[in-house]
Amino acid sequence: MIILGIDPGYAIVGWGVIEKAKNGSCRIIDYGTIQTPKNEAFPVRLAMIYEGMQKLIKKFKPDAVAMEELFFNNNITTGIPVAEARGVILISIIHSPSRLYEYTPLQIKQAMTGNGRAEKHQVQYMTRMMLNLKSIPKPDDAADALAVALTCAQTNNTLANNQTI
Amino acid sequence: MIILGIDPGYAIVGWGVIEKAKNGSCRIIDYGTIQTPKNEAFPVRLAMIYEGMQKLIKKFKPDAVAMEELFFNNNITTGIPVAEARGVILISIIHSPSRLYEYTPLQIKQAMTGNGRAEKHQVQYMTRMMLNLKSIPKPDDAADALAVALTCAQTNNTLANNQTI
Repeated sequence: MIILGIDPGYAIVGWGVIEKAKNGSCRIIDYGTIQTPKNEAFPVRLAMIYEGMQKLIKKFKPDAVAMEELFFNNNITTGIPVAEARGVILISIIHSPSRLYEYTPLQIKQAMTGNGRAEKHQVQYMTRMMLNLKSIPKPDDAADALAVALTCAQTNNTLANNQTI
Repeated sequence: MIILGIDPGYAIVGWGVIEKAKNGSCRIIDYGTIQTPKNEAFPVRLAMIYEGMQKLIKKFKPDAVAMEELFFNNNITTGIPVAEARGVILISIIHSPSRLYEYTPLQIKQAMTGNGRAEKHQVQYMTRMMLNLKSIPKPDDAADALAVALTCAQTNNTLANNQTI
């Protein structure tokens, strides 16, 4: 089973692809980022994200796409374009044959470390261990995307939990 | 020139279509809402909004699509799905031949009433007067959409101002 994890954003979208074997073990396939130029009009950047997502889905043909839900405690003004970009990513997944899974930050920390209040570096450490990597993937956006893909692999043995569509 | 105004949302998207004549006068063509069922999964509601937008653009073939920018002073949690829906509306416009125009709430109030601090009922009154209507279009979402279409007609004599893409 191929899982594409996505860390949403409008300047950088992190992505990571893993394969989950029937025995439950996971191996890394690829990871990276979709980056959009700061000097480009915002709607053009959204179009680049949509196209980037379509290319990833076409290339890796994931059975599942997993993405983190957004939470903002403050600074909503910064949050608006991130949420707009996340809407574009959602519709790009809906326009594909892949199933969509969404997780809260707490669910990801819980699945990765057993502790919903884990620190970022603890999640990254577990990402590295579970994928048998020599170092933590860079940038952080890609590492975060791999963590949400692993969360999907860890929690969805039946593929029923957290499936949004 | 045909202008489609959009009031973004995820439960209700307001829309209004006007035609601006060469002498600058505007007449109403149609207005309404795209509504998504509360009990449907959020990504499905986004897909309905995308499809609804595509149908509107196909039907009215607008030269321009005008939409309000989002501002949230508080309650960001409510704001996230609205912004995600707005991202979907943006990408549906980008995927069409229409030009996109965006306006802040202040610009809309200024264009419609000459006062950036105008009340909602003042904007609605001017919408009714400018389109020569007997009553204010209902629901408010549709009236708001007509106001942003009229703002586009009022401020874009050259079609250069506020054009995003």
